[in-house]
Amino acid sequence: MNTESEIRTLLDQVVEATRTKNIGAVMRHYAPDVLAFDVIDPLQYSGEGVLRQRGAAWFASFDGPIHYELAELKVSAADSVAVCHGLSHVVGTTTEGRELNMWWRTTYALQKRGDRWLVTHVHSSVPFDPNSGSASLSLEP
Amino acid sequence: MNTESEIRTLLDQVVEATRTKNIGAVMRHYAPDVLAFDVIDPLQYSGEGVLRQRGAAWFASFDGPIHYELAELKVSAADSVAVCHGLSHVVGTTTEGRELNMWWRTTYALQKRGDRWLVTHVHSSVPFDPNSGSASLSLEP
Repeated sequence: MNTESEIRTLLDQVVEATRTKNIGAVMRHYAPDVLAFDVIDPLQYSGEGVLRQRGAAWFASFDGPIHYELAELKVSAADSVAVCHGLSHVVGTTTEGRELNMWWRTTYALQKRGDRWLVTHVHSSVPFDPNSGSASLSLEP
Repeated sequence: MNTESEIRTLLDQVVEATRTKNIGAVMRHYAPDVLAFDVIDPLQYSGEGVLRQRGAAWFASFDGPIHYELAELKVSAADSVAVCHGLSHVVGTTTEGRELNMWWRTTYALQKRGDRWLVTHVHSSVPFDPNSGSASLSLEP
């Protein structure tokens, strides 16, 4: 298996773990010192523990499974560093009964440490409308 | 000069070109097929031409020079792929007389093509406040 296939397989596992809201199966692919820029406040989340907490809270905000995909994924990989970007799409129902159908942008950075690839950085965001100052939560690719 | 120093020098040049609003000096470091996720709509900007137009319009929205820095920069580089992330900070006055003082998150992906490193992907964003739905334009690290 070449490096790009290895990375795609890892991200497929993250996608599948997201669909089943299995936070442990997501976080096993993250480095202890991961730094995340998330779609919501604050500016950054530092470390695997903080990110696990945030992910678990997000999963818990859904009633039932999450329909999740990572579309338009591009992978750029060298021997020990890889970077990927794509568009994340979630469809689900929150515990408050609200229907969520949202696209956002996701960039992953990975490093090969020993014989394992680990996510060392993830950047997830929506853009905003400069006229209203509102986050653009209804954009579609 | 090792690879990390090469990348840092390149980003120093992008920062300096931003301060002097020299769009040509910024874009010479970007690949023709760059894909950008920007702080404002739309979801993505595809190609050097589109990004140049967006950058030029942004520079033109300032009266005088831009005070710009890229803080907390981390660089992770292999032989042909590199990824960097940091916090961008701009202070300036718009042509409408508004004082702008804003931090956002920036992630760069670079590839070595021939003997040159080029930015192939850039992801810039602010998070949003899930209670108000507003983009968080006043956060500080």
